Amino acid sequence: MIGELSKLPGVGRKTAQRLALHILKADDENAFRLANAIIDVKQKIRYCSICQNITETDPCSICSDPNRDHSSICVLEDPSDVLALEKTNEFHGVYHVLGGTLSPLEGVGPDRLKVKELLSRLKEGVSEVILAMNPDVEGEATTIYLSNLLKPLGIKVTRIARGVPVGGDLEFADEATLVRALEGRIVVQ
Amino acid sequence: MIGELSKLPGVGRKTAQRLALHILKADDENAFRLANAIIDVKQKIRYCSICQNITETDPCSICSDPNRDHSSICVLEDPSDVLALEKTNEFHGVYHVLGGTLSPLEGVGPDRLKVKELLSRLKEGVSEVILAMNPDVEGEATTIYLSNLLKPLGIKVTRIARGVPVGGDLEFADEATLVRALEGRIVVQ
Repeated sequence: MIGELSKLPGVGRKTAQRLALHILKADDENAFRLANAIIDVKQKIRYCSICQNITETDPCSICSDPNRDHSSICVLEDPSDVLALEKTNEFHGVYHVLGGTLSPLEGVGPDRLKVKELLSRLKEGVSEVILAMNPDVEGEATTIYLSNLLKPLGIKVTRIARGVPVGGDLEFADEATLVRALEGRIVVQ
Repeated sequence: MIGELSKLPGVGRKTAQRLALHILKADDENAFRLANAIIDVKQKIRYCSICQNITETDPCSICSDPNRDHSSICVLEDPSDVLALEKTNEFHGVYHVLGGTLSPLEGVGPDRLKVKELLSRLKEGVSEVILAMNPDVEGEATTIYLSNLLKPLGIKVTRIARGVPVGGDLEFADEATLVRALEGRIVVQ
């Protein structure tokens, strides 16, 4: 068990030993619940056939929600980004999870991402695609690739703002962020 | 000397003692240079009569530079923000330093900031005022106050983008920042 536990991220041999001893000391019921939860997840969790997010039901609860705006698709790298945006309670459209970013160095091309699945969703009444990749080198490359791919389709393609984070300070912002914040300035209404 | 040095920010009694002993041990020339530098700064540095930034010459080197775009004024809180934006080499307009932000709790009203000085600059051919306050509560209040003040004058008023910083990660961005990044999304050209 120690060997298996130490394969988890951030768990070394010593932590694994501590976890294993805790499980040994716990009563049977708790240990079985943990084991079953792990088996359950692997058996029940699949990818939503529409947005490619992880889900228990197919289509996922967001894609099958009639109250969401299905004409606005926010493209993200990972399921964790969906969770981050859902926490804001501000986005009422639907998502598309690419499952990563373009990374030629690691051999990740467009065929390894869910790009084809995104294109096939754009036929029916989609008015806006919001590109929300992380603002790093790979995210930038993916944003440029996707915007070039989507522009000819005549759909409005937007990208989320890069700028000074809320609560931040201009003085401590890096130069690249300040340049983007200036470029992306908006007219005050 | 220890007493005077310990009044500097971030310098406690112990650090002040270390600094004082260092100055004692240093040769006379070095100590006099430091003393003169302090006197010089207090005698020479004044506020630019145009942009209210600190300067040795009046008007400052930015305000008197004919190569800068004097029709675009970027409004900032502090001189340190001017340094931050100048480091980007991307802004070619001129600045206006407010000298703080509105803060009713600390008794700072518009009359304590260089607002009148800003208004008096807007007569001659200014096409855009860029509000670049820090994205915190006081900065936000100041942005709203200034935009309400400037809008009736018929000048284009913009504010810098709030969003995910370059190199950042959606997953680790706070919710307020994500909301601003979504709201401030720009159409991909």
